[in-house]
Amino acid sequence: MPLTRTPLLAETVRKLVARGAYVNAYKILNRLHPSDIAAILGDLSEHLRRDTFNTLYQRNLTLASEALAELGPERGALILSGMSAQEISAILQELDPDDAADFVADLPDELQEQILGAMREKEASEVEDLLQYPEQTAGRIMSPKVFSLDEDTTVAEAIQSLQAAGDLEMVFYIYVVDEHGNLVGVLSLRQLLLKRPETTLKDIMETDVIRVTTDTDQEEVSQLVASYNVLAVPVVDVQNKLVGVITVDDVIDVIKEEATEDMYRLAGLDTDERVFTSPRTSFKKRVPWLVVNLVTAFFAALVVSQFEDVIAQFALLAVFMPIVPGMGGNAGNQTLTVMVRGIALGELSWANSRKALFKELLVGLLNGILIGLLVGAVAFVWKGNPLIGGALCLAMIGNLLVAAIMGTLVPLTLRWMKVDPALASSVFVTTATDVTGFLLFLGLGTFFLARF
Amino acid sequence: MPLTRTPLLAETVRKLVARGAYVNAYKILNRLHPSDIAAILGDLSEHLRRDTFNTLYQRNLTLASEALAELGPERGALILSGMSAQEISAILQELDPDDAADFVADLPDELQEQILGAMREKEASEVEDLLQYPEQTAGRIMSPKVFSLDEDTTVAEAIQSLQAAGDLEMVFYIYVVDEHGNLVGVLSLRQLLLKRPETTLKDIMETDVIRVTTDTDQEEVSQLVASYNVLAVPVVDVQNKLVGVITVDDVIDVIKEEATEDMYRLAGLDTDERVFTSPRTSFKKRVPWLVVNLVTAFFAALVVSQFEDVIAQFALLAVFMPIVPGMGGNAGNQTLTVMVRGIALGELSWANSRKALFKELLVGLLNGILIGLLVGAVAFVWKGNPLIGGALCLAMIGNLLVAAIMGTLVPLTLRWMKVDPALASSVFVTTATDVTGFLLFLGLGTFFLARF
Repeated sequence: MPLTRTPLLAETVRKLVARGAYVNAYKILNRLHPSDIAAILGDLSEHLRRDTFNTLYQRNLTLASEALAELGPERGALILSGMSAQEISAILQELDPDDAADFVADLPDELQEQILGAMREKEASEVEDLLQYPEQTAGRIMSPKVFSLDEDTTVAEAIQSLQAAGDLEMVFYIYVVDEHGNLVGVLSLRQLLLKRPETTLKDIMETDVIRVTTDTDQEEVSQLVASYNVLAVPVVDVQNKLVGVITVDDVIDVIKEEATEDMYRLAGLDTDERVFTSPRTSFKKRVPWLVVNLVTAFFAALVVSQFEDVIAQFALLAVFMPIVPGMGGNAGNQTLTVMVRGIALGELSWANSRKALFKELLVGLLNGILIGLLVGAVAFVWKGNPLIGGALCLAMIGNLLVAAIMGTLVPLTLRWMKVDPALASSVFVTTATDVTGFLLFLGLGTFFLARF
Repeated sequence: MPLTRTPLLAETVRKLVARGAYVNAYKILNRLHPSDIAAILGDLSEHLRRDTFNTLYQRNLTLASEALAELGPERGALILSGMSAQEISAILQELDPDDAADFVADLPDELQEQILGAMREKEASEVEDLLQYPEQTAGRIMSPKVFSLDEDTTVAEAIQSLQAAGDLEMVFYIYVVDEHGNLVGVLSLRQLLLKRPETTLKDIMETDVIRVTTDTDQEEVSQLVASYNVLAVPVVDVQNKLVGVITVDDVIDVIKEEATEDMYRLAGLDTDERVFTSPRTSFKKRVPWLVVNLVTAFFAALVVSQFEDVIAQFALLAVFMPIVPGMGGNAGNQTLTVMVRGIALGELSWANSRKALFKELLVGLLNGILIGLLVGAVAFVWKGNPLIGGALCLAMIGNLLVAAIMGTLVPLTLRWMKVDPALASSVFVTTATDVTGFLLFLGLGTFFLARF
């Protein structure tokens, strides 16, 4: 969230709260957009952030709630953690039910009950309904406030209903339902303007409605919205009853979240972690991945261990030991990243995977030859030993081919097994390039040095 | 692009084109949404894709153009490469100018001129105008077809103009301009419905319009749209004259593109590469990064080289050599990924970087102690040598602290130097963890083994 519109005001607010002038800071914040306020709050230290938010909360509950929603559950939770259940529920009942559900879901169970108990009944039950759906599904991220009309409504009546509908900010489409509440059609606001007032919706609506069910994965929802260029997608239950709507602004959040997830998983990070997750939590979340990598590092050590006697004789081997597996790891990571992103963007599937593998093998071979010759030449010039150079060159070619194969097949196989390809691919790929890298270099090195 | 809506039809089309029944395949494609067609085309082999597209092109030019736009310039270019300039221009003039500009920009200069020359004059000049703006700026990705009305227009006249406006699919906002064409206000379609017909726009418009200029970076545009939850943002020139509009569907493309860019840069990939980029191009794009990594690998080798004599004496050192730098690399990569994503999402800045560094140091220390004790214990049990274990443990703690420092400071420094933090960070971080990892482990190992 760059403060493109308000950098000077943000600076002023920071200075004011730094010297405790919260009321003056409030006077500025009160004139800003909620997302500008969120950006300013996000940049403050925890202590100042909480105090600034409190000032805002006491003077303008609606604005405070909106700013909190923009801040998001991760960063907002720190603010809420200092408040009573009563205060929290006063804020959350101002939010859209889907935003409120995001916050509530992150709280401890006991506090959840207290807060929902203290909220107005209508808002509490909306939030409770959403919380029944699993995380990352359409049901969980939808807004239950969906604007729908009966199929027998006329255009004139529809326009009147729109005018009467109060706080529905993002109405782009009018969903049309039959007498059972089942979704039967859609039309855009603009289409309403083009038709005669007495026409009924049933005669002008589009009946082929792009829809999702409550259990559709949020990633699929976002791909659907992105593919079909729609601004909102209606959510129906198993009986095709219209129960909610997911708008494009939520989809943008999902797209960002899914991209973060892929990047994080490639690096062995838990998807919930952020820059300012507490050190304790970060430690607990990162250490398992490091332990998994440690196990694979011991595989590599086991390989090297087989060559201990040779290394004692030719210590020169140890000098060049890190190079082949290191380069294999880099090349494997390049291939892997292209594949994982290709799968996420829907460009790669089993159907066209043979072509992808063939391509990666060719690239691996070309890279292997070039890098192999280069590293062999440098080793020869540096240490005056052509045998080490030859072993390095051949091992490099072999290892870059392994990197190409594993980098392509591991993510495809994981996906075929219905595991997120970003999740565990890099462990397998790195283990393969490490083990074969050491094996090839030390094996070839032993062979060359012993024979010639 | 998952074929959630049409998996069976897609399969049928694939079978039909595989046995050359293009006309039958066309009959199915003709009933599908352009993005479904694009998804099917994307899954075909190059040869079949071109032939299928040709059949579609000859029978339904509009649909073919729309499908091509959905396919995007990278994958669409392969199709166009087999066509004449005449044919290409017939397709491109059907597209929205911003989509057409995307395709034209990727073509060789000479072909660009031929194609623009063969297009209808109006469309050609719209595309030429867009091409004057640098890539990845608002001017380049905007649509010049923006719906605007004079501030003295009444609500009734505005509704009439909307009804008359033909092919403007995504009208969400009406931008209001003064007599010089300068942007002075905005109102939503829905607001029009709420007001009396004789009201002039000037009296009901919102004057604080979120806008960007033609040279605004596309990443900033996407952050703006995401932050303020708007569906479109108007683009003005330096004189504040309204020249275009960027809609949320384009913003979604930008968000995906920028996420791909960050993932790719972390892995040392060129941002233009895709799964099916030609092997030759992929080779040329990947090899420079591998060479850069090779140079850093030689730094590591240089460090090891200083310990050649010790290794000749204690070859056991070589067995455990890969572990410390490897784990340092993994930990550094975790920190780096959190920071790069934090910067991209606007959560991390210089202002709060001290806090981030302190946190990472603490996490690095905890991880270092735990992993260090673990690796030391395993080494002791395996090889019965407590000295190697001690050296491993201390070196691990030191190296994970280095990983924390470098993982945090390198991306922040690059950003401060106005370089994309994702671009070169991992080289610096890996070099640091490799060099200090070998130095610490071999140094401590030498010290311990020689003394005790």
